[in-house]
Amino acid sequence: MPDFSFQVQNRCSHTWARTGVLRTPHGEVPTPVFAPVGTQGTVKTMSPRELDELGVSLVLANTYHLYLRPGSEVIADLGGLHKFMAWEGPILTDSGGFQIFSMEHLRRIDDDGVTFRSHVDGSEHRFTPVKAIEVQEQLGADIIVALDVCTPYPSDHEHNHVALQRTHRWAERCLQAQTRSDQMLLGVVQGGTYGDLREESALYLTSIGFSGYAIGGLSVGEPKEVMHEMLDITVPLLPDDKPRHLLGVGSPEDLFECVARGIDMFDCALPTRVARNGTFFTREGRLNIRNARYKEDPGPVQEGCRCYACQGFSRAYLRHLVMAKEILGLHLATVHNLHFMLSLMTEIREAIEKRRFPALRDGFVSSYKVVDYGVRMRDREAWARRLHTSEEVAAD
Amino acid sequence: MPDFSFQVQNRCSHTWARTGVLRTPHGEVPTPVFAPVGTQGTVKTMSPRELDELGVSLVLANTYHLYLRPGSEVIADLGGLHKFMAWEGPILTDSGGFQIFSMEHLRRIDDDGVTFRSHVDGSEHRFTPVKAIEVQEQLGADIIVALDVCTPYPSDHEHNHVALQRTHRWAERCLQAQTRSDQMLLGVVQGGTYGDLREESALYLTSIGFSGYAIGGLSVGEPKEVMHEMLDITVPLLPDDKPRHLLGVGSPEDLFECVARGIDMFDCALPTRVARNGTFFTREGRLNIRNARYKEDPGPVQEGCRCYACQGFSRAYLRHLVMAKEILGLHLATVHNLHFMLSLMTEIREAIEKRRFPALRDGFVSSYKVVDYGVRMRDREAWARRLHTSEEVAAD
Repeated sequence: MPDFSFQVQNRCSHTWARTGVLRTPHGEVPTPVFAPVGTQGTVKTMSPRELDELGVSLVLANTYHLYLRPGSEVIADLGGLHKFMAWEGPILTDSGGFQIFSMEHLRRIDDDGVTFRSHVDGSEHRFTPVKAIEVQEQLGADIIVALDVCTPYPSDHEHNHVALQRTHRWAERCLQAQTRSDQMLLGVVQGGTYGDLREESALYLTSIGFSGYAIGGLSVGEPKEVMHEMLDITVPLLPDDKPRHLLGVGSPEDLFECVARGIDMFDCALPTRVARNGTFFTREGRLNIRNARYKEDPGPVQEGCRCYACQGFSRAYLRHLVMAKEILGLHLATVHNLHFMLSLMTEIREAIEKRRFPALRDGFVSSYKVVDYGVRMRDREAWARRLHTSEEVAAD
Repeated sequence: MPDFSFQVQNRCSHTWARTGVLRTPHGEVPTPVFAPVGTQGTVKTMSPRELDELGVSLVLANTYHLYLRPGSEVIADLGGLHKFMAWEGPILTDSGGFQIFSMEHLRRIDDDGVTFRSHVDGSEHRFTPVKAIEVQEQLGADIIVALDVCTPYPSDHEHNHVALQRTHRWAERCLQAQTRSDQMLLGVVQGGTYGDLREESALYLTSIGFSGYAIGGLSVGEPKEVMHEMLDITVPLLPDDKPRHLLGVGSPEDLFECVARGIDMFDCALPTRVARNGTFFTREGRLNIRNARYKEDPGPVQEGCRCYACQGFSRAYLRHLVMAKEILGLHLATVHNLHFMLSLMTEIREAIEKRRFPALRDGFVSSYKVVDYGVRMRDREAWARRLHTSEEVAAD
């Protein structure tokens, strides 16, 4: 895999936290990294120029959505996803598995793949491990992901065991199906909330050997402690010299807890999705700008924040935009939340380098008010419903 | 009126076209000028920084909308509209009359004013000439507009005559009500499609004396030739040394035809509204990016265009964004259409300076395919319905 390298640079002496550099054909990614989600080949409300200005180093795009519309062949014919979406930096595409498995009533799984209906037009499609790689090779992202079987939470041990065996067979087929040498393929550790299955999965996948590892099936409704326990079991079994991506995570507080457990890469639609509902991240917790108390508030969302939204506009104006359903409001909230996540990650990397990560983590946790987990779960359920029932602008 | 000046600089020898400079407390406006519409205190999808980059020199905001939400007192308390929307350049607010009169079933007019219901929450409000000035003084735009009575098209001579008498009495009251000296107040010439009434209106308003004149009640459904005829009658009766604003106009072709008839200032939501439907202006006419022929088109919307949308993205990608209802698509179409209108106006000013305006106009007309007027009318009716029935993101 000559187009890639991953080097660990600094380690925290009290936790599993580490910094590193992931080199890809489209540039370097300093880790730990937060990747904004560009579901349909665009990070909602953001131009590529603005992503660049914010310091984004990696963007995630969803294979499921792009395969259906405009079609991966169309994107390939136009020169690949980088050219299509005019983003010259590194891109990661997922396998499409998570989206397909979240549409419970629209898909049928068998040993060789999964048959599903499009949420766009109801047409029938089939993804196999080989097909998932073929589509991702057409898209041409720098980092691609093996097709896995995602289980809902909660689900029993037997169900997870069966799903895991399929995930492992599919992982092998994905490795064999890969024809491009300029894409890093991540295997996906599954196993639900069962430690023995997570262990089995990590050992099996590392035995067949991937150039990087993703951890899937977490942050799907289980308590935070369970997610942390699964990471505590899984990460030590993964090779130290390969990057580790935690799929679909996380919130600001997740960054600290999961970096501390050895995660190098994150992607999550949360910061951009809640932005479009008027929620701004602050060091004190989430601020919903729709609250009437901000109607005449002349101050910025967060004092001292260097983002364009906080530098240029009052809470009163941002509230007005959101209440009046103005697109600029959704955009400015997105700018702020992405800036927040990226700045947090920069601080985390610097703290690891300077051997004061535990202090940064303690400081953050002591001031940041975490929203109860159930709220995120309801967000997620609402999202899953929306995915196949509508195409509203706000859908991720 | 020491805060303002208007100087005519160049004249076309074949038409009434002229260039000039309008100086305001927030900067100079080279004329003829096209002002983008920022209905609710934001030009939809655009940040003030982006407006500045495009070379926007004047923004229009709607008094009716801002009075209702967030409220003109709120904006005054926050330091006025410039500070509120973070736009440091010149702003023009209309009187609110057009919006109120377009809601036929939600308002009652009498000799002293008009009582109406809010499209936001159904609450009852009343605008009189004095109130319209008071609200616009709270907002604090550089250029404000007298409250006028707008008639629908078609409507008979008698109806227009009665409305015109009210418009004239209200114009006087607005002049008397004005207390700020840092705002230029425009009187509004009305008279529907009746030449004698337009003549009467122009003579009356100039006799009481405004620092600038707006022409209202045109482009509301009448044939283009009638609009041109009304301008041919009205403009020669207005003082040569005062700016002339044509309210709510226009399309690209309107800029040429109305500049040729002596108009200095335009505002229109058309370029930004059609953008959000996927329509891009080109030198050949309107291009609807939703057309299937663009699905795999790697070229820009307009070859040679210097806007960010054309410099960075293919027709195929822009079509994908619009089809997938992605906000970036609406934004890029808006950027392109505003760039198109502003570039056209720059070319027009340069052509007038260099005494080749008639040639530019002929060249444009020969290549630009005009969409039939009825389409714009249906746009307008749809807009009027939308105004009081919904708050969709796309509404202007």
